[in-house]
Amino acid sequence: MSRPITFLSDYGYADEFAGVCRAVIARIAPDAKVVDITHGLPRHAVRQGAVLMANSIPYAEPGVHLAVIDPGVGSDRRPVAVRVEEEERILVGPDNGVLALATARLGGPLDAVDLSESQFRLQPVTATFHGRDIFAPVAARLALGARLSDAGQAIDTASLTRLELPEPRVYSDRVVAHVLYVDGFGNIALNIGHDNLAETFLRLGHSAQVDTGRNRITVPFARTFSDVGPGQGLLYEDSVRSLALAINRDSAAAILGLAADDEVTLSPAD
Amino acid sequence: MSRPITFLSDYGYADEFAGVCRAVIARIAPDAKVVDITHGLPRHAVRQGAVLMANSIPYAEPGVHLAVIDPGVGSDRRPVAVRVEEEERILVGPDNGVLALATARLGGPLDAVDLSESQFRLQPVTATFHGRDIFAPVAARLALGARLSDAGQAIDTASLTRLELPEPRVYSDRVVAHVLYVDGFGNIALNIGHDNLAETFLRLGHSAQVDTGRNRITVPFARTFSDVGPGQGLLYEDSVRSLALAINRDSAAAILGLAADDEVTLSPAD
Amino acid sequence: MSRPITFLSDYGYADEFAGVCRAVIARIAPDAKVVDITHGLPRHAVRQGAVLMANSIPYAEPGVHLAVIDPGVGSDRRPVAVRVEEEERILVGPDNGVLALATARLGGPLDAVDLSESQFRLQPVTATFHGRDIFAPVAARLALGARLSDAGQAIDTASLTRLELPEPRVYSDRVVAHVLYVDGFGNIALNIGHDNLAETFLRLGHSAQVDTGRNRITVPFARTFSDVGPGQGLLYEDSVRSLALAINRDSAAAILGLAADDEVTLSPAD
Repeated sequence: MSRPITFLSDYGYADEFAGVCRAVIARIAPDAKVVDITHGLPRHAVRQGAVLMANSIPYAEPGVHLAVIDPGVGSDRRPVAVRVEEEERILVGPDNGVLALATARLGGPLDAVDLSESQFRLQPVTATFHGRDIFAPVAARLALGARLSDAGQAIDTASLTRLELPEPRVYSDRVVAHVLYVDGFGNIALNIGHDNLAETFLRLGHSAQVDTGRNRITVPFARTFSDVGPGQGLLYEDSVRSLALAINRDSAAAILGLAADDEVTLSPAD
Repeated sequence: MSRPITFLSDYGYADEFAGVCRAVIARIAPDAKVVDITHGLPRHAVRQGAVLMANSIPYAEPGVHLAVIDPGVGSDRRPVAVRVEEEERILVGPDNGVLALATARLGGPLDAVDLSESQFRLQPVTATFHGRDIFAPVAARLALGARLSDAGQAIDTASLTRLELPEPRVYSDRVVAHVLYVDGFGNIALNIGHDNLAETFLRLGHSAQVDTGRNRITVPFARTFSDVGPGQGLLYEDSVRSLALAINRDSAAAILGLAADDEVTLSPAD
Repeated sequence: MSRPITFLSDYGYADEFAGVCRAVIARIAPDAKVVDITHGLPRHAVRQGAVLMANSIPYAEPGVHLAVIDPGVGSDRRPVAVRVEEEERILVGPDNGVLALATARLGGPLDAVDLSESQFRLQPVTATFHGRDIFAPVAARLALGARLSDAGQAIDTASLTRLELPEPRVYSDRVVAHVLYVDGFGNIALNIGHDNLAETFLRLGHSAQVDTGRNRITVPFARTFSDVGPGQGLLYEDSVRSLALAINRDSAAAILGLAADDEVTLSPAD
């Protein structure tokens, strides 16, 4: 009985890239269930991919979790597989940070291997499609039950790439947050997690002024989109229990001109 | 042996939303086959989703049929599961009309439950992602064989939201139809079903003048796109046996400036 | 035990078309694994589909390989199923060339049938959705083990549509190549295959001048994208071991104004 595989990438839907990876997996591990998380991430969005991996993998059955967002494909960045503490999940992908947040959230790394010379690779390994040639076949073999130590060369887990996220700054009269990422609807995920939400709400009251540098709007804290009228903005606790900024039935990112890493200053509205 | 699940939504492909729902289903019901109908519907397109459910579900194996188009997520609209007459299919989604046309087409509702307090929900239930927290886990449990009555609180099927579609108006010299929806290629589905096609054809002859208010073109009734030249328009019986308007190898909606609900007047061309 | 099915189309992701085909397959052959290669090909891109079939199917488990890119749906082009030499794979799709390159690559056709009157069709067969009404149900029956000769009427394999690709022209001081297709990232596949690469490199040296008629740039031959800086161009051996032209982290096709069939002249840079 194979372990299940989840698969996330920035390969998009216009091409055969994700599909060929699925074909490679199905050929090696016909019984392995493959759950596509998404392949529609913005190209090269390593950080957004890292956040989505951390937010989505805990909902999936423990298994092999593949993330291919790989601007440095074919360079000297390492392809890796990492076994984490919780439920013996194995994360597979480039060692560029895309696995870092999920690794940390799932208890940290137990052990890790460099897949550069993995015996499970397809030959010949091309320089531009490691999803097909390295990551998919290694994930499939691990799903079949291969030992991590047989998939590549052991590396020190302390050498795995970490991901530094910007930290919000909390002042007496305002909170300076950052755009973590923008989803496909233009909703804006901010870097204020659940643990800091209560304090943020207390500090800001029932509504907040949102200052982007170029735009300034006042929005209420609300539970869900339809608590405000169409075209109205809101701050809310999103589905991963972090603070988010949206405009009901429209794109907050487009209207406010915000993108990943931009600073947003929140202050009491009254 | 689990029942199969179909899954349609407006979650899009840019984000992890549909993928996380698939992961939740796979974790609860690993053996349940999930067939994605599409996740690319225009955002909040409840009526188009309702039409597509009615048109596509009859082709699927009887099972659990999930539709998440949910502009009112987290508000007081009810999440529901509805068992219909034909083949004991169970439809799951928000009670905003998205299930209404499929329910009617499949023999009408036998019984229904409100899922707001379902014991099958994931905890905590967030206010903005009921696909993951309510609909997917309930669908998975129903696929595993849970009884509808265990999934939520029984409600009167007469209280289920219905969907009013515009009706075409037939005059002696013309037919006034409405755009039901526009597909991804710009083909225009009109609200003239198979039962009225023969009469419409008789009334209009071999070709028709199509008047949109802003544009007027004359097009033949044809069997298929390639019966006319590239860039030429046609009226045809589409794949669900309703009247549709298209332009071969181009977008009729873009060229004619038509969108859902717009009126189109058809009259004899000669 | 059913054979696996791969599925490629230009149905896109906005509509239910690919999903309904999957539902039809799942109803007929519930145990058949379906691997979606992609449904995001440019509409009516028969040649690109043919190239992707030839490039991707060899990575998939032998089975039934469905390709629905069908601008002539409902016309007198034939729907066909073709059994090829290698591994008894069966290709299913319209006989418009979309199967031609994969057929040739997989050893050529052993036998073929016309599916126009197949007993496996869904009734009624509509004029515009043969994916649902002919191709999907036939593919599912073949996956279940039906004999090719039971799927349709035998035809002469010599009558199958072939696909003529432009040939590069090699001169003493330059190579005139053609754009085979542009992928979703704007990378440009040229019609110079692996067998001619060595000679091309020798002829051109370490970098080449690329002349599109409107634009002229000098780019190095590199192994992978990140070998050049962001915004820099490169020529490289792509993942199917053919010559390709890209701009690191940008769209070469958009910047150079190139599309399928355009000529590109490559000459030594120094």
